[in-house]
Amino acid sequence: MKKEFRTIWWDKGSVVIIDQRLIPYRIKYIKIRSYKEMANAIKKMAIRGAPAIGVAAAMGMALAVVNMKSNNKEMLINRLEKAGEIIRSTRPTAVNLFWAVDRIMKIARESPSGEKLKINVLNEALRMAEEDIEINKKIGEIGSRLIEDGDKILTHCNAGALATVGHGTALGVIKTAYSQGKRIIVYASETRPRLQGAKLTTWELIRENIPVKLITDNMSAFLMQKKEISKVIVGADRILAKTGHVINKIGTLSHAITAKYYGIPFIVAAPSSSIDLNHNPDEVVIEERDVDEVLYIDGVRIAPRGVEVVNPAFDITPPELVSYIVTEKGVFKPEELRRLVE
Amino acid sequence: MKKEFRTIWWDKGSVVIIDQRLIPYRIKYIKIRSYKEMANAIKKMAIRGAPAIGVAAAMGMALAVVNMKSNNKEMLINRLEKAGEIIRSTRPTAVNLFWAVDRIMKIARESPSGEKLKINVLNEALRMAEEDIEINKKIGEIGSRLIEDGDKILTHCNAGALATVGHGTALGVIKTAYSQGKRIIVYASETRPRLQGAKLTTWELIRENIPVKLITDNMSAFLMQKKEISKVIVGADRILAKTGHVINKIGTLSHAITAKYYGIPFIVAAPSSSIDLNHNPDEVVIEERDVDEVLYIDGVRIAPRGVEVVNPAFDITPPELVSYIVTEKGVFKPEELRRLVE
Repeated sequence: MKKEFRTIWWDKGSVVIIDQRLIPYRIKYIKIRSYKEMANAIKKMAIRGAPAIGVAAAMGMALAVVNMKSNNKEMLINRLEKAGEIIRSTRPTAVNLFWAVDRIMKIARESPSGEKLKINVLNEALRMAEEDIEINKKIGEIGSRLIEDGDKILTHCNAGALATVGHGTALGVIKTAYSQGKRIIVYASETRPRLQGAKLTTWELIRENIPVKLITDNMSAFLMQKKEISKVIVGADRILAKTGHVINKIGTLSHAITAKYYGIPFIVAAPSSSIDLNHNPDEVVIEERDVDEVLYIDGVRIAPRGVEVVNPAFDITPPELVSYIVTEKGVFKPEELRRLVE
Repeated sequence: MKKEFRTIWWDKGSVVIIDQRLIPYRIKYIKIRSYKEMANAIKKMAIRGAPAIGVAAAMGMALAVVNMKSNNKEMLINRLEKAGEIIRSTRPTAVNLFWAVDRIMKIARESPSGEKLKINVLNEALRMAEEDIEINKKIGEIGSRLIEDGDKILTHCNAGALATVGHGTALGVIKTAYSQGKRIIVYASETRPRLQGAKLTTWELIRENIPVKLITDNMSAFLMQKKEISKVIVGADRILAKTGHVINKIGTLSHAITAKYYGIPFIVAAPSSSIDLNHNPDEVVIEERDVDEVLYIDGVRIAPRGVEVVNPAFDITPPELVSYIVTEKGVFKPEELRRLVE
């Protein structure tokens, strides 16, 4: 197994990220110098995946203050508030963005001075990056107990190292189970429109020598019917503790309904930072992205002029379709998350 | 509404087809001069859709004999048998191919002489083409009774004029209902890997001014959950009369399971020539097509080197997921088809 890579790190006053839009064709690193550049990188999905954009948001907040000449705390707080507002607006569905901005704002407000604020904010962002890897390894360890030797596992989109700072959530579980000697075959659904399954998940798994088969999203039912899939494991962009609903990449709901129909366990793996304690399903904004994501694949147009397109980026899977939610704090049934609220 | 087009016709000793691989980019007609060229056109999907390839098979059989100098009946029968074998082998799942070859062979065998055989085979092929349009109009008329004003209808792949000689089966129902003044919105799922929904169905519906929205295959569950889809209507490549199973383009099963979960009627529209009286589901060969269909979209590669791919072209929807089967002979519940066998 190759050394695990990182998607994002701090480098002397700027942030470096892997441009995920170019994988698997090219590995290119981008230097991010300001919170505005970071907001843009998140919006354009140069960096994506709920845990990864949480850390990217925190580092973007750090960029907003560390290079400022002024040490006036009030001014720095104002600037952070503005940066936080812009970063929050980039992608409305993943809760990790809001969680990261809130966590940085809290540290900033608690800092006794402007100088301290800068140091504390940067340290908190760096800590969040390290924590993310630790949390993913813990999720991998806990989740791997649900994986058996011989499992054929469907995963959707990319909940791998690329979706986090490192290791991954759903793919982290698979990697950990595989490293324990369990024989696993992964089915990666390509994940239209942006093809993160085809481009990112297959790339990560091939890199780790874990057997992977690529399918189009609409093939999972066929494979489940033939008993070619024994488990489904996906990440999450937001989990609603009040109701147990799981918000994840468009197409997740379809796999979940099909898994239920064929009696196949449906597992969600995500850090507790993806858990939203406050909202109900009808309060969640589902991001609607540019129609060109559907109409063009790597620059090639696939449909006639004049066609209308719908492009929701996420869907909401109800708790009755979810077998287990794996976090760094343990394995939960969706209805057990309510306890976190009470 | 524009004049309806035809996908295939006989033209002085050869056959002309629209090359469906180029739509919506270009409308190009291909001249087919021999049964081998026809077999190749079917295999490469220059012509596709169960009813269309049935007629293409019949015309291919006609090509095998009409330009022959010999009028020796035995020789012509031998040649038809060889042509039939090659044509049957092009695509193993759609039953219309076998139906067409058998129908032509019967006419040929019943012909009193070689001269008569040539005339009868050609006339039968031409009759099958005309019948197909008549049958589709009848399916449209019968099926339109199931469609209500205001329906939002999901369709998968292309079961339109392009999948038949003209008018279409599932899209034929939609067109007829629309022509009756019913307000309809169609959701066309793009239908990976070959994108017949994105390329062909949207093109046909835009041409007829019927409102159509393109979605990726994995968005149907999201739309059904939001009550944005009130009915699903698809074609079929083979319907098993003994058990009521419906074999259709990969992805159909997934839409059917999701429709069942949300209590949405799932309608299949197909000519009775798609009904297979003899086989059980486990006897049906599901065509596995070239992995490059998944790996490349219009020549652009979407996944890393070395990835394994699965590419079944069809799936099998069990009768408990099918609300109605519309044929030119009426509307049936899947379990009612058994009567056709008995």
